[in-house]
Amino acid sequence: MGLVVQKYGGSSVADAEGIKRVAKRIVDAKKNGHQVVVVVSAMGDTTDELIDLAEQVSPIPAGREFDMLLTAGERISMALLAMAIKNLGHEAQSFTGSQAGVITDSVHNKARIIDVTPGRIRTALDEGNIAIVAGFQGVSQDKKDITTLGRGGSDTTAVALAAALDAEVCEIYTDVDGVFTADPRVVKKAKKIDWISFEDMLELAASGSKVLLHRCVEYARRYNIPIHVRSSFSGLQGTWVSNEPHSDEKGPKVEQAIISGVAHDTSEAKITVVGVPDKPGEAAAIFRAVADAEINIDMIVQNVSAASTGLTDISFTLPKAEGRKAIDELEKAKAAIGFDSLRYDDQIGKISLVGAGMKTNPGVTADFFKALSDAGVNIELISTSEIRISVVTRADDVNEAVRAVHTAFGLDSDSDEAVVYGGTGR
Amino acid sequence: MGLVVQKYGGSSVADAEGIKRVAKRIVDAKKNGHQVVVVVSAMGDTTDELIDLAEQVSPIPAGREFDMLLTAGERISMALLAMAIKNLGHEAQSFTGSQAGVITDSVHNKARIIDVTPGRIRTALDEGNIAIVAGFQGVSQDKKDITTLGRGGSDTTAVALAAALDAEVCEIYTDVDGVFTADPRVVKKAKKIDWISFEDMLELAASGSKVLLHRCVEYARRYNIPIHVRSSFSGLQGTWVSNEPHSDEKGPKVEQAIISGVAHDTSEAKITVVGVPDKPGEAAAIFRAVADAEINIDMIVQNVSAASTGLTDISFTLPKAEGRKAIDELEKAKAAIGFDSLRYDDQIGKISLVGAGMKTNPGVTADFFKALSDAGVNIELISTSEIRISVVTRADDVNEAVRAVHTAFGLDSDSDEAVVYGGTGR
Repeated sequence: MGLVVQKYGGSSVADAEGIKRVAKRIVDAKKNGHQVVVVVSAMGDTTDELIDLAEQVSPIPAGREFDMLLTAGERISMALLAMAIKNLGHEAQSFTGSQAGVITDSVHNKARIIDVTPGRIRTALDEGNIAIVAGFQGVSQDKKDITTLGRGGSDTTAVALAAALDAEVCEIYTDVDGVFTADPRVVKKAKKIDWISFEDMLELAASGSKVLLHRCVEYARRYNIPIHVRSSFSGLQGTWVSNEPHSDEKGPKVEQAIISGVAHDTSEAKITVVGVPDKPGEAAAIFRAVADAEINIDMIVQNVSAASTGLTDISFTLPKAEGRKAIDELEKAKAAIGFDSLRYDDQIGKISLVGAGMKTNPGVTADFFKALSDAGVNIELISTSEIRISVVTRADDVNEAVRAVHTAFGLDSDSDEAVVYGGTGR
Repeated sequence: MGLVVQKYGGSSVADAEGIKRVAKRIVDAKKNGHQVVVVVSAMGDTTDELIDLAEQVSPIPAGREFDMLLTAGERISMALLAMAIKNLGHEAQSFTGSQAGVITDSVHNKARIIDVTPGRIRTALDEGNIAIVAGFQGVSQDKKDITTLGRGGSDTTAVALAAALDAEVCEIYTDVDGVFTADPRVVKKAKKIDWISFEDMLELAASGSKVLLHRCVEYARRYNIPIHVRSSFSGLQGTWVSNEPHSDEKGPKVEQAIISGVAHDTSEAKITVVGVPDKPGEAAAIFRAVADAEINIDMIVQNVSAASTGLTDISFTLPKAEGRKAIDELEKAKAAIGFDSLRYDDQIGKISLVGAGMKTNPGVTADFFKALSDAGVNIELISTSEIRISVVTRADDVNEAVRAVHTAFGLDSDSDEAVVYGGTGR
């Protein structure tokens, strides 16, 4: 039995009862002979409450102080969790991100981990302790200031610690049973995925699946740390994410499916740059303007140029939250770039089909479009990778499109099985 | 203009409005040309809420984890305060006890400061920042664990930082106007003291005055740091505590009064050990038993032995909270010590008259007893030091006794002045 890292999200430790339930589960792992490192998020709505307080004292809270403030949240949950474990007769010690050796850059509010030096965690484990580590936080290498890792940061903390400690597995406990073939709130017959490759999981995360964030999966793939996403409310096996199909003692070896799942995303908007001169360097100028504002764009499509005018349109998608900024940047650069006008559309949705199997199954793309067509869904943009097809449709069509595709690819479960699904667990 | 350390208690930063009000006051000090270091407690009831959470998960929370938990409180208030100051256009950085260099021993929940190495604070000040430091917390020298300083710890943090930074003054902001000649809740005509010596303040604190704790005053005296206790709700001058009468530019030099004030304390109980053989070593055996249980005793009185029996009674006072433990320890040692029985009385109160002037005014003691006698108050125990007389009475008599003594020593104010008084501010 080796070392396991377990991560519990805020919904799992929302109150004293939740903390005691989680403590019992942790102690069970310890009793089974594992060395156990636990990464914990702030309790329930603590982080939102702290953000609310910050907004009351300052409209634009400074990054350094904002991080200092938010990290109080995990400090509370981790100390309580350690107490609850000790109350069950087992030794536990809690550690801040800094104490756990989570070293980051100095970009407050969204720092990146640059090293993990878990010397104190090792010592605590060797002395028979369960180590409880604050998720989401670290300490900057140069200034020794407290930093936070941004959205989904606790998952990243867990995977990074698992890598640094050479853990057998990183268990991500949440309020859902695992990763599903589609969002169960949209597709009632969605199935829990038993195993999925890092690559497919990365594509699902990039396409709107919220259970694991892209950054965390990327980290796990780089260090080859298997992730087990499972519910903290049940004892069920969840979803394994790893390089190789996972062979669990409790079940048969899982085969890789042709299609892993259908993801959707309605958090993006579309900007169309109308009347762009069709000559080299125009697209580069447009995306340079957007990139300089640190805006991440997703899909890009350039229409065929109209021969009569020599002008073309370029469309791209981006997070709605960054729409205003992108429009401003492009307007500023309008004269230099030389386009006619901008169109902004935030009533779009994206549906993505993900599966490594589509590389060797040429019919997948055709079947995908046929399913959408049969469902009467109009396609506005298309983008593909080796193992993913994504289309943009009207936002109103998204749910219907997801269901149609899910059924067409045989992903529907046979029974209307009971699905445990609450939220994102983060 | 030199460096000032300001300390704000939890009631001063109880909500966003309080934090903004305090931020303005801090900025005013900075504008007046001071370098400013601010020590802040947790907001309002935060600490009590955290203790409540701890009790929900574990009946006996472990010291290390309890300290980790509680220190989240100051983390929140200090980060918000730094944000509020930055919002007023001034630079501020917050620091945990550990970052501020508050090094303690490893006694969790009541650690003692053993060194202060405020290198980061100095740097922050030299760069033009206002430094905000978490009160009440430190880091242990040997294990690098987070510790807390126990009750009144934030005041001690402030004085310790003031000493390490060679500050001009340590300003303790609270919700009262200063130190009064008696508790204004009991004596309506109590007066604010403009200046009081460290020695008298130490005696008042030891005798039940709650505004400053003994430990904090002791620290200030050792390093000769003047303390200015004042209200965070007004701009009034408060009470200066220092070696020499303070000469403020705003007023005349203050003379030391014969009597500084009257303190009272109803938090103690009295234990009487009845029928102790009157021979050498008996008292030592009794107090050894109590001391071994780490119980602090206050007054001790031994009656004259009755010649006929060769037995005597020994009475002592101690905090009510430790009464049960003391009784248990003495019962265990009963056979070895050889006394008849124990009597426990928690309906007592203590009244103390404090003033360095009594050293050279021999009539003070007589006047004190006469005042009590005129008020019909019966005295049960007496204890004196060079600059203090304390008596134990029935708890019900305490308020009347305090008022009588206050009037007898001419401490009453001439007018029924408006007194700002809320609570202990801690």
